[in-house]
Amino acid sequence: MSEKRGTIPPDHLRYHSLMTRERLAECMQQGIVVPEGLAAHGRAEAFDYLIGERTTESALLAEETAAAMLLMADHPVISVNGNTAALAAGAIRDLQEASGAFVEVNLFHRTEYRMNAIGRLLEERGVRLLTGEAAPLLPLSHDRAWCLREGIYAADVVLVPLEDGDRCAALCSMGKRVITIDLNPLSRTAQTATLTIIDELTRALPGITEACRDLTRDECTSLISSLDNRYFLRSALEEIGERIRDALD
Amino acid sequence: MSEKRGTIPPDHLRYHSLMTRERLAECMQQGIVVPEGLAAHGRAEAFDYLIGERTTESALLAEETAAAMLLMADHPVISVNGNTAALAAGAIRDLQEASGAFVEVNLFHRTEYRMNAIGRLLEERGVRLLTGEAAPLLPLSHDRAWCLREGIYAADVVLVPLEDGDRCAALCSMGKRVITIDLNPLSRTAQTATLTIIDELTRALPGITEACRDLTRDECTSLISSLDNRYFLRSALEEIGERIRDALD
Repeated sequence: MSEKRGTIPPDHLRYHSLMTRERLAECMQQGIVVPEGLAAHGRAEAFDYLIGERTTESALLAEETAAAMLLMADHPVISVNGNTAALAAGAIRDLQEASGAFVEVNLFHRTEYRMNAIGRLLEERGVRLLTGEAAPLLPLSHDRAWCLREGIYAADVVLVPLEDGDRCAALCSMGKRVITIDLNPLSRTAQTATLTIIDELTRALPGITEACRDLTRDECTSLISSLDNRYFLRSALEEIGERIRDALD
Repeated sequence: MSEKRGTIPPDHLRYHSLMTRERLAECMQQGIVVPEGLAAHGRAEAFDYLIGERTTESALLAEETAAAMLLMADHPVISVNGNTAALAAGAIRDLQEASGAFVEVNLFHRTEYRMNAIGRLLEERGVRLLTGEAAPLLPLSHDRAWCLREGIYAADVVLVPLEDGDRCAALCSMGKRVITIDLNPLSRTAQTATLTIIDELTRALPGITEACRDLTRDECTSLISSLDNRYFLRSALEEIGERIRDALD
């Protein structure tokens, strides 16, 4: 893009959502977000629209359950990709503070340049990043196998917002409990994870953080023992179904 | 993006859809597609997934009706944006040949650089482009008001694939009959257009082209007189609702 693009007219009905996309576009020019990340964001927008662009009751319960899992874990790790860093670096810092989780950068499209740019962005916002030598430790083809031995590889609980289905399945196959944030209740990630939070990233992360601050140990145990991911998937599908029915009336 | 990104692993389940996104990403690097176009593509992908990634029966009828409207128009114009040029330049050429419609480039993010890059791409694929002096002739704020006096401004029927809601409404308010291709039956564009084709761009355009080649004058008249856009919107919502119900079973 060698030329300045036009700016978004403030009278546009979807001004807020266009501005978020513009933030992602800027981050792409800095090498933090890849083009495919913008398409993934668009898919999320579509499902958020169908879910009503709000945190549903069942999503709030999922966020509380995620908080309980992070608090009770021996070695919780938050895996951050380019879109998450671009849209929610501050929210990741808050969640790290409230949960005590490690934070590791993990990218589908992994290059040294991106790893450094994303690491810088997160550290500027106060995130304490796990560092060390990465190695291809996950059962995946491609660069996606790489992670830190003391990070995701050693984790018992991993929060992977905006994950791709392959990596989610690989982490589960290693016996880890995987929490994902994914607006599509039909995606492989949503269907495979231990716990699926069907909510928009910048609403879900503060929801988990708040629960981390409030929950007692007993509440954590109770939330974890009653975790039923099929309930969360069904609830989201029912919300979408209702919205479709309303439109048909 | 100063560094080469990793390539997509062929064992990835969504290889085809990742490759389409990669085509858009390449076109972005050439200035043909804007970052926001990638997000818009992602939204379309989500709805295509919900519609079953196929041309439904009602969408096929919408494509035949679109062909009838283009064939019977006095001054039909196809309005092409960056995503449409990137994904379907050849299909636009075929439709132009079969329908006799004019083709005009019309961009949300309008710059001379992009107008030229997109014009070149289309002409290389055999599209005959309408040229001339553009002026701000549409009732819209921003660069989006610009079009050709002999093109969209003079059109009685406009096909605008992948349109934004504001421009669709503006064209309708000028008394034009607007055909759109939009996978989201709830979007303002879909709700506002004279005829909404709820199908994926690269399936919909050949569908219209084929109908242009086959339809008789009488069939055209009959299709146009029985046009009921609410039927097309309802059918798509019912398809999505069914898919959601299937997932709940």
